[in-house]
Parts: sequence; structure tokens; C-alpha cells
Amino acid sequence: MMNFEYCNPVRILFGKGEITKLGELIDKSLRVMMIYGGGSIKKNSVYDQVIKALSNHTVTEFSGIEPNPQYDTCMKAVDIVKNDGIGFLLAVGGGSVLDATKFIAAAALYKDGDPWDILLKQTPVKEALPLGDVMTLPATGSEMNPGSVISRVETNQKLFFGSPAVYPKFSILDPETTFTLPPRQTINGIVDAYIHVVEQYLTFPANAPLQDRLCESIMLTLIEEGPRVLKDPNNYDARANIMWAATCALNGFISLGVPQDWATHLIGHEITAEYGLDHAQTLAIVLPGTMQVQRDKKKEKLLQYAERVFGITSGSEDKRIDAAIARTEEFFRSVGQKTKLSEYDIGPEACDVIAKRIGMFPFKLGEQQDIGEEKTREVLKLRV
Amino acid sequence: MMNFEYCNPVRILFGKGEITKLGELIDKSLRVMMIYGGGSIKKNSVYDQVIKALSNHTVTEFSGIEPNPQYDTCMKAVDIVKNDGIGFLLAVGGGSVLDATKFIAAAALYKDGDPWDILLKQTPVKEALPLGDVMTLPATGSEMNPGSVISRVETNQKLFFGSPAVYPKFSILDPETTFTLPPRQTINGIVDAYIHVVEQYLTFPANAPLQDRLCESIMLTLIEEGPRVLKDPNNYDARANIMWAATCALNGFISLGVPQDWATHLIGHEITAEYGLDHAQTLAIVLPGTMQVQRDKKKEKLLQYAERVFGITSGSEDKRIDAAIARTEEFFRSVGQKTKLSEYDIGPEACDVIAKRIGMFPFKLGEQQDIGEEKTREVLKLRV
Repeated sequence: MMNFEYCNPVRILFGKGEITKLGELIDKSLRVMMIYGGGSIKKNSVYDQVIKALSNHTVTEFSGIEPNPQYDTCMKAVDIVKNDGIGFLLAVGGGSVLDATKFIAAAALYKDGDPWDILLKQTPVKEALPLGDVMTLPATGSEMNPGSVISRVETNQKLFFGSPAVYPKFSILDPETTFTLPPRQTINGIVDAYIHVVEQYLTFPANAPLQDRLCESIMLTLIEEGPRVLKDPNNYDARANIMWAATCALNGFISLGVPQDWATHLIGHEITAEYGLDHAQTLAIVLPGTMQVQRDKKKEKLLQYAERVFGITSGSEDKRIDAAIARTEEFFRSVGQKTKLSEYDIGPEACDVIAKRIGMFPFKLGEQQDIGEEKTREVLKLRV
Repeated sequence: MMNFEYCNPVRILFGKGEITKLGELIDKSLRVMMIYGGGSIKKNSVYDQVIKALSNHTVTEFSGIEPNPQYDTCMKAVDIVKNDGIGFLLAVGGGSVLDATKFIAAAALYKDGDPWDILLKQTPVKEALPLGDVMTLPATGSEMNPGSVISRVETNQKLFFGSPAVYPKFSILDPETTFTLPPRQTINGIVDAYIHVVEQYLTFPANAPLQDRLCESIMLTLIEEGPRVLKDPNNYDARANIMWAATCALNGFISLGVPQDWATHLIGHEITAEYGLDHAQTLAIVLPGTMQVQRDKKKEKLLQYAERVFGITSGSEDKRIDAAIARTEEFFRSVGQKTKLSEYDIGPEACDVIAKRIGMFPFKLGEQQDIGEEKTREVLKLRV
């Protein structure tokens, strides 16, 4: 096990009815900006629950955060935050809304020049406005981590930043808010959470058997509960299990002291930036390719994954690895996720386009730091 | 899954060499009280590492914290804390030293009368001195939770308190500090951590498959790594895995949204108070008895435990449960822990003595709240 540091101060309030506690969680002396997306929260009563819980607060609303939240939209919110003396940001929605809120919180107090540098140059974020969230889409884990991904349409970029200053003060997770999610978002969430775990698990052994098993626990839960929730969207327990699994998949706990990959994510980000696919759609395309191309370097973990997650114990090592990769793709397809570029009408030229984008990175990807332009092309040629 | 709230602000620094960071973790303007036990830290270099790391701090030492830390000893420390204007408490040792430090931190700022009421009457602890620790004995999980158990010899009591105010600000876990632990303490630690998990797992199903699997992950890790560490005490990875598993066993994460038992612990506490056995020694005696007596009410979880932890899948339900209980006891014995009262020269009269003590509790024990005097007698009669 490698050395590690961990401190996760997020207060989680999990379960039905927890939104009613919102008023007690935010200092009444602070003006609140309520940040949300396209208005689905107005259809499913979440908006009403939040407004009711904040009836003793002064609330400014800011809506219109996009999936793959845009830098320009965030900066409009930053202007209002500064002009209106906003003291607390409340994200109501999914990972995109929360990621945007984290960036707004950091940019509002950023004093070192252009806030775009937070993303482009990774200039450290030392302070941020306090923020909290009502999370309505189990997927990204953003509700219990200090990371955020922001896109900029004019430059075709999708970039990450992270800082302890943007940990939410609290995250309210009420599984009932997810009953009305469109299937596409439920599916994306399941796939996204699953692949978050894979990125932290499928590397090389680091003598960390507990962390391995925690990862397998989350994957097995998603494999079991995913189909349940798709068949029966109002099943509280299945929704709750998916929701908590998605949070645990990326709150930092399962990756303590072990190597991490994230190549699939970084290749996926480029596909989203270039072709506009949903984040999780890109991941389900890319992952079987990275597993295949990196199969020798990931051999021990792939064999463990085959056995413990899918019960594959017979056949040669190569056959077991083939089966594990096939079962992974089958799982995505079984919950309704497509897994090939052509299924989104993207032609084979994409392999080259995306490979060249990855080739421009100042570093190579993966836990082996060996995935550049050529290997990306190889990965994507398997996924046309 | 039941509703839950969770916030664990402890900063963990895990790995070899992390003690050198101690000086940066404590504000230099605060006078530090370094609290430890019987002096084993002077034999294994931990004392020297701590003193070196705090060379720019003003440090007062307080040693002599007992296993099952005593109220009177803690109150002596409280006097010094008040007289010397101590601003930060640093526990260096195992769970007993840390539990004592938590109580000292709370008692030093307690203004509502006799600090004994914190334990006896469970009066709320609203504030406490800040504290941190260098944890040298993986066992209790105290390094990442807000609980503490204190004993009082004159009244023969062993009592618990908990408060978010006594979460450590940081916990340094260096597996190398555990290389020189006497086997008895290593064994106690493994058994204690294992039974912490059992108390949070072996109840009734609550539709929380992820929490179940997290528990099984920790138990499997302890079963695998326990024998390794006993055979090869200087095996860094095995020590590290035991250490992290013990922390994860009682940092509150695995019990979110599920029922908990703790009958074995409460019966065990009475055995320690009456006969002076080590905490984990009492647990290894009691657990097979509570499993047996509660086997019908715990049936579903016992069958799951049999299958997933010990791979027991054949035979009738009763046979599988018998086998799971037997394998649990075998595991304790395989790491060198005794499991019967008579092995500690305690006669069968103990069944009655302890049962009567439990009968005086103002509540019944266990997740079913059905274990009182009679059932405790039944449990212990199986363990003579």
C-alpha cells in the first residue's frame, strides 16, 4: 500500500424527507444563490421542496446550467454573485450543476487574474464561497469530492480542477428525487459510477486487498441494483442503493494508497468535447477498448476482476480476460447503454481525430503513463 | 436502507514516515500535552520520532494511561491541562490512550458539573480541546470516530460516551510502529476489529447490499491478513492492511443506514469490569454465544455470512449456520485467541454474575432489544 492522506469533511444527509432540513444547514445571514439546470426540478417537486425549506432565507435563483457545464454560463453567475453579495451557493441537480457551482464558488473569490486559469493552468484554488447541494442524479460522486469538470465551447475544451476549498459543506441525497429521472440519465449514472470504480481498481496490484474488495463491492452492487431500478423506477431501496454506490464510487475512499488509471475518462472527455456525446456514453464506448489494449499490463487485476465480479474461474488466463471484457460490455448493454461509436453515427475517422487530441496532451495517460496518440487510436479502432 | 447522516472530518495520514509531518499539524502557539501509556513507545522509537517532530512546540508529557483507561487517571491529566494552559492534546498509543485523551479533552472544558456525568448520565459534550493522535495499535477505530470508553475501578464500571467534538483533528497511522507490538496486542486488535464489523453486519437485512459487502470486505481482509502478520510481524503490507482494516471497521462508514447489534460488546464490557480480561478477549468468548442464541433472528444474515465470508454453501440452513459459528470461533483460535471463560480460569458462576449485571441495565441489548439477564445467562452458559 502506498502512503496516503485523506480528509473528507462533507456532511451527508441521506434518505427520504431530508430536504426539509435544508433551512437549518445554511446560516440565515447569508444570501443564497440556488443554482440549477434546465428546470426538471420544477416538474418533480424538488424545486418546491427546496423553496419551502428556505422560506426564511433570501434566495437568488440561477438556472440554465448545461450538461457539460459551460465556463461562460458559470461566469455569468459569478457576476451576479459579486453584485448581489451572495454568501452561499446551493446546487440543486446532478453532477453538472454541482461542478458548475464548485467553479462559481472558486471563481467568485479568485484574485490571481483570469479564473479560466484555474482550469487551464491549474492555478491553486485557495478559497471559495461555501456551497452545499441537493443531489438529484446519482452518477458523478461530485457531492462528496472536491473535483469539478468544466467545458468551454468556443475552444472545444473540457477541463478538470480540484481543491479542498470546494468540498460541499453538506450534500442532501434523497433517493425519491431520482424516481422521475429519464432512463437515459439513470443509465448514464449507473455506467458512470461503475467506470469510476474501474478507473481506481483495474491497474496493477498494490498489496491493498481491502481497497480491492471495496471496489468490487460497489461494482457488484451496481450490477445487481442497476437492472432493478430500470425495471422499477419507483423502487426506493434500489434507487437508494444506486445513489449511495455512486457517491462511494468517487468520494476518494476506495483509491487510498493505490494507483489510478483515468485513461478511459480522459479519452471520453475528448469525445464529448468533439462530438457532444454524454459523458457516460463515451465511457461505455472507450472502456472495453482500454481494457483490451492494456490487457497484459492489467493482467493480474483483470483475472481478479473476472473471478470476483463475474465469477469467471475456468479457462486459460486469456480466455478469462476475454470473458471479463465481454461481460463488462454486456453489462453496459444490458442496462441500455450503447458501446460503439457507430451507434452514435460517428465514423471511423473519429479514431484519428481523438487520437490526435490525446497526442497533444503534455503527459501520457493511464497508471502506466503509456497511453498517447498511438495507443488511443488502437483503443478506438476496437470501438468503431 | 434507513435514513442517515454522516460527517467524518478526521484527517488521516497513513504510511511509513508520516510522523515527521506532526509538527506542521499542530499550531505552534498551542501548548501540547503528549499523552501515552506504559512506555512501550520509548522502546520502539515512536517516542523519539514524536519528540523530534515537535521540537518547535512546547510539550508537557502525561504518561501512565492504563488499558481500560481509568477515570481517575484522566482527571489527573485534566488538572494539569487546566493549570498549564494546555491547548492541544496529542495521544500516542492505542485505543485506550486515545479514548482517555478524548475524555480529557471533553472534561477539561466541561462546565456543567461533575465530568463523570458525561459517562454516567450521558450529558452532551458540546466542546472539547482539539486533539490528534499517533495510533500505534490497530484495533478500536478510535482514531477515526467520535467515541470513547472509560472505566472506573472504584465502582467497577466501564462506560461509553461520544460527541463530534472529540473527533481527532488528525490521526497518523504508520504501520511500522506496529512491528514491535506483543503478539497478545496484535491478536486482540485483529479480533476486536473483526467483531466491530460483526456488530454492524450480523443483524437483519435492511436492503443495503453495499454496506453488507463493505463489511464482508473488511472481515475477509482480516481473515487473510491476520495470520500473515502473526507469522511475519515485520511484513509492512500485512501490517498496513490490518491497520487500515481496523480503522475502516469502526469509522462509522459501514453502518450507515443499517441496524446495529453491540450486545457482544456490552456483555464483554461487563466481563472486563468484573474479571479484568482484555476487551478483545471478552469479545471472542461472547460472540459465538450471541450468534448461537440469536441464530433464528439473525438467520438471513448468518446464511449470507456463511456463504460470502467462509464459502459455506452446502448443507441445510441449520448446518450452514452451525458451520459459520464454528468457523468464526476457529478463526479466533487460529490467530491465538482463547474463546472460553474456563481458559481464563473463570468458573461457571460468571454466567450468573454477568447476567445479573446486564439485568440491571435500563435497556435490553442487541438490534432486537431482547437480550436481558436471561438471554445473557444463556449466551454465557455456552461459553464456560
